[in-house]
Amino acid sequence: MGKDLLQKITSLCKRRGFVFPSSEIYGGWEATYDFGPLGAEMLRNLRNLWWEEFVLKQQNIVGLDGAIISHPKVWEASGHTESFADAMVEDLVTNKRYRADHIIDEALGIVSDGYSLEEINKAIKDNNLKSPDGNELSEAKHFNQLVEVGIGTTESSKTTAYLRGETCQPIFYNFKLVKDTSRVKLPFGIAQIGKAFRNEIKVGPFFYRTREFEQMELEMYLHERDHEKYFEHFKKWSIEWLVSLGLREDKLRLRDQEFKERAHYNKVATDVEYEFPFGWKEFQGIHYRGNWDLSRHSEYSGVNMEVIDEETDEGFIPHIVEYSIGLNRLMFVLLFDAYAEIENRTVLKLDKRIAPFRVAVFPLLRNKPKLVKKAREVYESLVEAGFSVAWDDRGNIGKRYLSQDEIGTPSCVTVDFQTLEDDTVTIRDRDTTVQIRVDVRDLVSSI
Amino acid sequence: MGKDLLQKITSLCKRRGFVFPSSEIYGGWEATYDFGPLGAEMLRNLRNLWWEEFVLKQQNIVGLDGAIISHPKVWEASGHTESFADAMVEDLVTNKRYRADHIIDEALGIVSDGYSLEEINKAIKDNNLKSPDGNELSEAKHFNQLVEVGIGTTESSKTTAYLRGETCQPIFYNFKLVKDTSRVKLPFGIAQIGKAFRNEIKVGPFFYRTREFEQMELEMYLHERDHEKYFEHFKKWSIEWLVSLGLREDKLRLRDQEFKERAHYNKVATDVEYEFPFGWKEFQGIHYRGNWDLSRHSEYSGVNMEVIDEETDEGFIPHIVEYSIGLNRLMFVLLFDAYAEIENRTVLKLDKRIAPFRVAVFPLLRNKPKLVKKAREVYESLVEAGFSVAWDDRGNIGKRYLSQDEIGTPSCVTVDFQTLEDDTVTIRDRDTTVQIRVDVRDLVSSI
Repeated sequence: MGKDLLQKITSLCKRRGFVFPSSEIYGGWEATYDFGPLGAEMLRNLRNLWWEEFVLKQQNIVGLDGAIISHPKVWEASGHTESFADAMVEDLVTNKRYRADHIIDEALGIVSDGYSLEEINKAIKDNNLKSPDGNELSEAKHFNQLVEVGIGTTESSKTTAYLRGETCQPIFYNFKLVKDTSRVKLPFGIAQIGKAFRNEIKVGPFFYRTREFEQMELEMYLHERDHEKYFEHFKKWSIEWLVSLGLREDKLRLRDQEFKERAHYNKVATDVEYEFPFGWKEFQGIHYRGNWDLSRHSEYSGVNMEVIDEETDEGFIPHIVEYSIGLNRLMFVLLFDAYAEIENRTVLKLDKRIAPFRVAVFPLLRNKPKLVKKAREVYESLVEAGFSVAWDDRGNIGKRYLSQDEIGTPSCVTVDFQTLEDDTVTIRDRDTTVQIRVDVRDLVSSI
Repeated sequence: MGKDLLQKITSLCKRRGFVFPSSEIYGGWEATYDFGPLGAEMLRNLRNLWWEEFVLKQQNIVGLDGAIISHPKVWEASGHTESFADAMVEDLVTNKRYRADHIIDEALGIVSDGYSLEEINKAIKDNNLKSPDGNELSEAKHFNQLVEVGIGTTESSKTTAYLRGETCQPIFYNFKLVKDTSRVKLPFGIAQIGKAFRNEIKVGPFFYRTREFEQMELEMYLHERDHEKYFEHFKKWSIEWLVSLGLREDKLRLRDQEFKERAHYNKVATDVEYEFPFGWKEFQGIHYRGNWDLSRHSEYSGVNMEVIDEETDEGFIPHIVEYSIGLNRLMFVLLFDAYAEIENRTVLKLDKRIAPFRVAVFPLLRNKPKLVKKAREVYESLVEAGFSVAWDDRGNIGKRYLSQDEIGTPSCVTVDFQTLEDDTVTIRDRDTTVQIRVDVRDLVSSI
């Protein structure tokens, strides 16, 4: 049910308020999406879970919240203004543009990422490759994916800067400030959650690849000799965390990137992939970046980025192992993994810490003031206990269950006539559909 | 201690890792700041507290997480491309630029925000006003504060779009999608937290006014007849919430904006101001925007934004009362409000839900393995309980207390020799400096 499932999830996301095409009233906008009420809650839950695991629980990892627009020199030092570029080709009839490596790989079954422009043009010519619409292709050209912004108070004084193409640069250029103010010693990590932007050529499916996206990144600073240990540790840790979120382990795999696929700063790169109905796709990466980042910032800024090796008393520039996950992609993966059709039900089997609503509360009937009043009390008590709580008093109970199943609400609490007599309610479980009856006082501990 | 206090807080923020000048190794960048490890935690705490109060606890308010870059037509409809402009003047010697209204207001003690260019130029000429450096000023000009971005995959195909100048626009253009998918009825609200960008002319002090900033906004959709009720409710609610965060009520005031100060979309606007050592400054606003926003988006998109009045059965375009607070400014206010010098101590009296670290754990001596091991156990148990926990084993206990006081950590727990005998620890309170001894099993409930 490959494309079929993509359509179903796209439809569900829009119908229930997880994800909207951005600026839809103006016909949409450039592969950009807005996250609706349920999507916003889900993203918020994922950010908090990630931060708890990767920052708060780790004594040697601290957080950062850096700017989206930094000094343009940052992107010269990082190598992005020079080489953050995908070779692209244009359909000479439709003028649609495509990543050259995608055209070549699909046609020839090879991995051409990293080919020079000459190699690309030769491969296209020698094999007489066409566009997906069957038309002639242009010569391949490089295009810089960094998004330019004009900063300054008048046209004549404007400076061109860039929206960050990856969130990690503020982590690198603030290395010394963080180290000195936090008094941390190697090995230590700096983590950050935030938006990044790229003028992507090929976008989709749905919100898998977009021009505006959110990353959760952790950069571990360490001695060169420790990089393999941390690389292995990060691979293991990342899979364990994903499985703890409820992802099916057999749908996950680690895949080492080939040399030609790797970004200019990576010495070793492993992708974490998920098996979608349309194939295995990357949504996270573990990268050994060597000491590229701090060396370059040291060179371009003139600031010494060395630390002192306590054993040899010699200065060295720390190496970096990076953990980088796309927040929106993680949500995308979780929706596919959680989606199930069971008899007449569509169910999102999301972990209870991730589901937009932790619990829903229903009065059995909406036209009985005593039931509604009691249900409101139950609702309020759950809100006070810190839960995200849905309220529904429309239609019959069966329809309300179906409605909550579709958005992944783990538990539904119904206030009925018996509640008014003995202060008990029913709790219905999303996955088993089993209902149990509990005392209202035990409600919080029961869910 | 006006400027003195600003200097002290600026210094503290950098020294301890709350706020760094962005891209400092490249000489800084355009009034932009990065939030260091402690600042990132503080911002995260504030986001979560705001979301809990203004979204999770409100049955008729839902969240949204919209894009930073939307269709350019959004900003035409909003009126920003036309009138989101401050009149500015230039110092003819230094070429520094200033907001014209600030020059006039300071010199003449009036409120000129809203003056036409002619009125501004007349006021400057008639009163022979000079720049802050005492030099001649240029004619006043309008400048659009929206930050332009180039979106598209090649130079020739690039479209000019804008970084959002206020977060609320995705809330407006998604009005119908949210209403229909969430099945909410008027009055209801949509809330959002996120970044916005403006090419500000006058920036500072410190990170009070910056080009990149984060807003927390709530737009309440309602019938015109309800706007006064909600406006009053929002004023009361916002002050109550600020006071619940520990802000001193006598440092807060509501100030109604005069007609000429108001943005083009506001019918009524009240600022929430804080009394800094350098004067009363706005950090939050309550605005009655009429039906400007939905009317304009309706007009520019051709999409009908009307809802049906259940009483009269007639369609109408909802009106909006807005609650808008600057997240970074809220942090700025809280730092000033919490800062105290008591005898030899510098103390940030931050609410325990806001302080970067909820608790710190110390082994009495770092060279006693048994003490360190036990302290690690205590540290781990507090981390597991969900607290943000600092660890310090350097210097003497007195210095560690001073160090934690300065960053606002409410409680310090020390593991000493007695702990090894009877499993009790000391808890030292930041504000009273009183130490009590408690059983390790009661630690979580004691703090």
